Order: sequence, then structure tokens, then C-alpha cells
Amino acid sequence: MNLKLLTGGWSLFLLIGSLTAVGQVDTSVTGIDRARFQADSALIRRLADTILTDGRTYENLRTLTKKVGPRLSGSPGYYKAERWGWQALEEAEADRVSMQECMVPHWIRGGKDVAVMEMPDPAPGRKKMRVDSLDVIALGNSVGTGPGGVTAPVVLVHNFEELERKKDSVKGDIVFYNYKFNPLFVETFQAYGDAVRYRGAGASRAAKYGAVAVIVRSMSESVDNVPHTGSLNYADSLPRIPAVAVGLRDADRLAGLLQGGANIQVSMTTHGQMLPDTLAHNVIGELKGSVFPDQYITVGGHLDSWDPAEGAMDDGAGCVQSIEVLRALRAIGYKPRHTIRVVLFANEENGGRGGRKYAEAAKENNEQHLLGLESDAGGFTPRSFSLSLNEEQLSAIRPWLDLLRPYGVYAFERGGGGSDTNPLKGAVGAVVGELHPDSQRYFDYHHARTDVLENVNKRELELGAINMAALIYLVDKYGWSAN
Amino acid sequence: MNLKLLTGGWSLFLLIGSLTAVGQVDTSVTGIDRARFQADSALIRRLADTILTDGRTYENLRTLTKKVGPRLSGSPGYYKAERWGWQALEEAEADRVSMQECMVPHWIRGGKDVAVMEMPDPAPGRKKMRVDSLDVIALGNSVGTGPGGVTAPVVLVHNFEELERKKDSVKGDIVFYNYKFNPLFVETFQAYGDAVRYRGAGASRAAKYGAVAVIVRSMSESVDNVPHTGSLNYADSLPRIPAVAVGLRDADRLAGLLQGGANIQVSMTTHGQMLPDTLAHNVIGELKGSVFPDQYITVGGHLDSWDPAEGAMDDGAGCVQSIEVLRALRAIGYKPRHTIRVVLFANEENGGRGGRKYAEAAKENNEQHLLGLESDAGGFTPRSFSLSLNEEQLSAIRPWLDLLRPYGVYAFERGGGGSDTNPLKGAVGAVVGELHPDSQRYFDYHHARTDVLENVNKRELELGAINMAALIYLVDKYGWSAN
Repeated sequence: MNLKLLTGGWSLFLLIGSLTAVGQVDTSVTGIDRARFQADSALIRRLADTILTDGRTYENLRTLTKKVGPRLSGSPGYYKAERWGWQALEEAEADRVSMQECMVPHWIRGGKDVAVMEMPDPAPGRKKMRVDSLDVIALGNSVGTGPGGVTAPVVLVHNFEELERKKDSVKGDIVFYNYKFNPLFVETFQAYGDAVRYRGAGASRAAKYGAVAVIVRSMSESVDNVPHTGSLNYADSLPRIPAVAVGLRDADRLAGLLQGGANIQVSMTTHGQMLPDTLAHNVIGELKGSVFPDQYITVGGHLDSWDPAEGAMDDGAGCVQSIEVLRALRAIGYKPRHTIRVVLFANEENGGRGGRKYAEAAKENNEQHLLGLESDAGGFTPRSFSLSLNEEQLSAIRPWLDLLRPYGVYAFERGGGGSDTNPLKGAVGAVVGELHPDSQRYFDYHHARTDVLENVNKRELELGAINMAALIYLVDKYGWSAN
Repeated sequence: MNLKLLTGGWSLFLLIGSLTAVGQVDTSVTGIDRARFQADSALIRRLADTILTDGRTYENLRTLTKKVGPRLSGSPGYYKAERWGWQALEEAEADRVSMQECMVPHWIRGGKDVAVMEMPDPAPGRKKMRVDSLDVIALGNSVGTGPGGVTAPVVLVHNFEELERKKDSVKGDIVFYNYKFNPLFVETFQAYGDAVRYRGAGASRAAKYGAVAVIVRSMSESVDNVPHTGSLNYADSLPRIPAVAVGLRDADRLAGLLQGGANIQVSMTTHGQMLPDTLAHNVIGELKGSVFPDQYITVGGHLDSWDPAEGAMDDGAGCVQSIEVLRALRAIGYKPRHTIRVVLFANEENGGRGGRKYAEAAKENNEQHLLGLESDAGGFTPRSFSLSLNEEQLSAIRPWLDLLRPYGVYAFERGGGGSDTNPLKGAVGAVVGELHPDSQRYFDYHHARTDVLENVNKRELELGAINMAALIYLVDKYGWSAN
């Protein structure tokens, strides 16, 4: 596309596009409504302007990813991140910053995870395959292999049904789950939801039949070979066996050999260890409400990340966007009616303790919460918000979309928050919600060493923050029923 | 975000989201309309399924970018690309593939562009700055400096108004246009439209006052220092002086020094040369119409790219998406009523000759064209289509959005096509249109060496193709007024 384009579609579209939003409202509303729309539109434009020009989202993300780095619960990085969060909230001019104590699991990787595959007994006349390394990473919460590692034949299964069929022949072996993301799900979170049970439950299901370790195809659909970690959950009643995720290209290669009838054995060494629970904190910054200081709007992301990653997208993005909401409201001089709380949650990745702790404390203190809003689906271009409202309530606030659409959000969906805000609904009846950015790139980087600053686009990150700030402004001003 | 998320917002949202689209239609339409909607929805789902599972978009883009590579008009790469296009269209099972001759400009870069800056007369007591290189690239169509290069003092201007104020003091100097993308435009194409006149007209405007060369801040808002080329247009009446684009970080550094009062001179050497026009081709593949074989729906992208880039996004993406439209329609066994033509246009970047040629030929042959649809805004996640329809016509087809929304397109906008399809409107009265993907990342890579396959996401590219195929199916079936 070159400069000739400017005589073409875009320039006309852009000119008319901006008129249309206002024009649509003109035809159907009263003068009072129009004046209100224009005032809201102008205020949201001021939020957008400060976020796009003086914003701190990207620079905050740079320091979090490059100066703090990985920050799994209990690691030195996490405590460094707590100090980073405190400082960033102070710089955003929170009225008050505090720490909320929270006991968290403390899993350590303990060393570099390695795996090699070899063909011990090639068919006659066939060359023995050389020992070939696999790009693997131990799953979070998994036990290690011990210093001597595990060496065993590999059994390929595509799903749990196939495991059941092969249950009598996996004893002493390594089970390799090669369940793929289903590309037909347009929303990649559906493919994740469909596949992630193999990461979560695969080890115990295989241990039940005597397997000594598992290899799980990474939860991704990327074109590279980078492995993706993430939590597993051991069943209490079964032996705990080591578990690794393998990169997709290596998974394809391994599966191809096994399907071709080759006998493959894998030697793997991992060092994971679960230590006793340890103390961590939710980091909380507030803008005090001018009318209802004891009623809260919470906005947050989680401060912890998996250990191989900078956690730029998961969930540095949500943290810096939430901090930016506070900074921007302050910067334009907005006085919120309710208290706005930014919460950087502890331990989302391998325990969810921070979110539950925050909800429990809210219940103990009889706090009223209008909204718990979360950003934990990456710093990608925004598309919609999900909210725990019924269809009638959603219809009532859909006129707000005329205010958000210029910044990318065009839909409110029935749903809920994320794992850190959902507990607030049960605890104190808060409406909970989540920013839904475009999902196509998310699982390319999720829980992998590629989750770095360079894969976050500054402007997409900022647009997310703009929509979050705008929604919070609207809820603060009108509540859920006043529209 | 971890697996606990699945008890949260996304799963509920995803479940209900898919029901809602159908549910909305149920409440307001007749049984016949509902049956039609379901049939259309099922057919589009089949298009999506083949594109997401057996699609050739990404592999075609891989061969175009990695085996063909840069392909500026007149270069050996362009002719290689023509052969690639021919083969890809045959593999997609076009009924007929042809070449349409077209004379194109033939500009060559001629060598590596270099520029260094130095401070020849540091203030007393100040250390002389060392000679420091700038990351530059000559603008397309620009003349070279000659082998000896150009060395001259640099004058900083922020815009044409400032140039006018300084017009008596730029003679013999290099003018440095440091006009920035305005971050307040949410659509980055608006920022481009605002800034690109300095690339297009800056050289001649400075030459008018005796400048010997120009340096232009790259047309980008990226966080890196990669320079972005693109066309300039010399005014016939003025001397043709060399012109380069400079990376944004170097632009900031150079501007900072100049604003601090430093005298800076730059030595630059470029080798650009405009050779006589040469022969190239639009590459055209057809699916023959079963009812109206002499009425056409055209879908295309441009085959040429700038020379420093693989042209993955600009516009390899549009080419492979257009080819995929044909492949997918064929793969599901759809018999189009009208003839579908995929056109890989020649010379969009520095002449626009391919698009004009195609329109001229359509006019000469008295062809009827229902639609000229273009993809030339990158292979990013789709959001909308612009179309050269009035508001009433757009309203008539807005029900189609219920069919596209599951794949990412949620809006039809009043506008037009791109620079290759717009001529069809004037020539034969075609409705023209363009896919509008999300625009935030586009100018990070546009016309730069970073426009490579690795910056295109496979699924985002496929979703664009799905929406294009779906729109073409709907236009083929219902036309513009039958809905």
C-alpha cells in the first residue's frame, strides 16, 4: 500500500467513520441524551489522549519485563515485582498504596529441563537414529525426575480414550499426549479449553496405569517449536510422576516416528520441587471515592508470571493497563464517585490465592463492589468486554458501545471476569468482567519464553487501557441501571 | 492466565456467544429468512473449515516471501513472483490463469544507502562528536547522490510551514523533516495520511529553496529504529534531489542534537536510478460463472513489494488471501453464479499501473463488474470492510454481519476500495471495497526490512481470507439489492 491509497477507501472511510458514530445518536435520542453523550465522549477522548501521548503503559511494561523479569510465586522476582508495583502505583498518584498478605504455593523448577529421544532397536538394516534432543519444559507444580532422570519407551496417545484402550500396556513407559489445538475454534481460548485437560490431568491419568512420566503437546497453535509450561494438578491418590510440555514441531516429529512404527525411548531430566507455602502480597492502589468512598470498583491483572517468560502479555499487560486506568483518571482531574482500586494479584498462575484472598477480605469487611474488572488475556487489540450481566442488563448498557467503538471495543458479551475477579462475585455479589482482546496471537506466547515485551504492540496495549478506563468511568458515573 | 480461567468468563462467554448470533436473528425474521440464514451460515462455516484446516494461505505466503522474496516492479524478483502467482492459482484449481501485460516504472536502488552524521565545529571545550551512522534507506523513485555522495549541514524542520519560514537559509543544506505520526489518531492510516506528504512532496519542496538533499522521518510509530521506504513524487519543474528516510530513534537523536543548537552535517550516499519503463503483468485466475459468466467479481492484492522487504504484509497477505478465496470456493464445491477473478496486481507501490490497466481493459471489453474487492492493509485480524455504497445500501446488507461476526468482521463502512480496485469504479461502475484488518501494527513493518513472514500470524491471515470468501459468496448469491 502506498500513498496513492489516500485518494481511496481509507481516507473517505476515516472521515465518514468519525461522523457516523455521532450521527447515529442524533437520530434517536433527546437533546439531554445527546448532550450527555457528547460530554461522555469528550471525557473519554481526554482519557485516550493522555494514555496515547503521556501514557506509562509501555514504559511500565518495559521495566516490569526487562528490570524485574520472570516472577513466579515465591521467587525473588516476585518480591521485586511487588516493589515495582508499589512504585508504579505511587508514580501514577494513587491516594494510597498497600500490600495485602497472602500465602502462596512455592514451586521451583530447580534447573534446566532436558529430554532426548533415541531409537534403541532399529529394524534390521535400518540405521540407528542418533540421540536427538527435544525442546521441552517441565509443567508447573510437577515433581522432578531425580538426578538420574527417567528413561523409558514412549507410548503415543491422542486422547484419554486412547489411553484407556492402551491402559494395560503403558506400565513403566512414558505417555505422550499429542492432542492438538482444534483450529476450527475461531476463538483460541476455546481450543485451549478443549486441550488443556491433558496438561492439567494427563500426569495423574497416566500414573494410574503405571506410566513413569508424561510428555504433553504444548498448549499452542504456533508455527514455532517453543514449549509452553503451565500448571498441572496431581490427583491426591495417585503417584506423582514427572511431566513436561514439548514444542509443536518436536511433537509432530516424535508422533511421526511413533506412528511409523518406530520404538522410541526418551530420557528426560527435570528438577521440579514444591516447597512449603510462603508469604506474598496483592499490591493495591486506590483513588478515593468522592461520594461513595466505601463502595469499590476494582480493576486488576496478576503480578506473577511463569518462570521462563518475561510475562509481558501474561500478565504484565493487565498490570500496566490497570495502573494506567488510575493514572489517566488522575491525570485528567476526574474525581471518581466510588473508590477505584487497582489490584495487582498474587499467584494467579499456580494457585489463584491472590484473587481468592482479595475476595475473602472484601467479604470480611462487608465491602460493596460495583465491578471487578480484569485484564488477563494479553495486551492485544481490544474487541469486547465480557460481563456477568444478564441479557436485559447488557441491553441497557449497549448504548455505551457508541463511546467505546472509536477505540476498538464493539461488543459486551455475557460472561464473567477472569480467575482473579470471579471470586468477588461469589463473595460480595460484584459484577465481574474482563477485557477481551483479539485472541489469535495469545497462545503463540502464553507461558513460553517468547512472552516478551517485543511481542506486545505499544498502541494495542494502550487501546486496551483506554477502553478499561472508559468503562470504569461510565460505571462510576452511571452504575449499571441508570443508563 | 491459567487453566482455572475455564471456570470463568471465557467459557461462558464462548458458549453463549455462539448462541447469541443465531438467537438474535430468530426474534425478528420469518421462517424463510431463518432457513436462508442457516444455509448461508453453514456454507460460510464450510469455507472457514477448509481455510483453517486445509488452507494454503500461510504456506503460499511462506514460498512467496522466502523463495521469491523482494519483488519491486522490473526486478528479477517480480518476474519470479509472476511465475509463483501463476502456479499458486493453478494449484488452487482456477479454471483459467492468464497474464495481462502492463508497462511499469523501473526504479532500482543501485546499492546500499548510507548516511553518517558529524559535528564539524563543536563549541569550545566540547568534545567533537564522533562520526555516527544513521539507519537510512533511500525513498523509492529518488535519484542517487552520485558516487561521491552529498555532504552538507542539516536544517531541522517540523513541517512545511517551518520550511517556508526558513526558506532563505536552506540553500546548499540537507533539509530534515521530522514530522511525527500523530498518536491521537486511533486508526494509524489517519496518522499515515497526515504525515506521508513529507515523504511524497518533501524533496521537491526543499529543492525549490536550494536544498541539496532531504532526510525524512520514517512513516511509522514503531518502537524500533528501522527505516521505512516508499514512493516520492518529484515536481517536474524542480531539481531532483536525493531523499532518504531515517529510523525513528535516529530521527529523535538527530533532532535532539539540532534542537540543542549543535551544527550537524550529514554525509550520505545513495544510488537510485529510474530506468525506462518495462513490461510486467497482472496475473489473473478465474472461476467461471455458472449463470452469468460475463459478469465479474474481482478480488485481489498486489504482487509487487518494496525491495528491502519480503513484502509479507504489503502485500503478500492480500495475494495469498485472494488466491485462497478461489481455492476455498472450489474446495467446497461451490459453483459461483458470476465469474470470480483473482487478480495479482502489478506495480502498486511505485506507479499503480497494474490496477489502472485492469480497469482500462474492463472498460474496453464492456465488462460488467459487481465488485472489486481488495486486501492491501496487512494480514492482521479482520475488523470491517469498506465499500463504495451509500448509507441506504449499507443498511440493506448489514444483516450479513451476523454471518461474518463469528470470524471477526463486525462492520461495513462507507468508503471505497484500495488503489488497485478503485479504478474499476470509475471505469465500469463497479462497487469497490477493501478488507480493513486491525491497523495498529501495520506501520511497524510497512515498506521496511521487518515486513517478513514472521510478523504475520497464520490464523489472523486465514480469518481475513474467510471473511473475504464469505462476502464474495454473499455478493455472488444475492447481489447488492436482493437482501
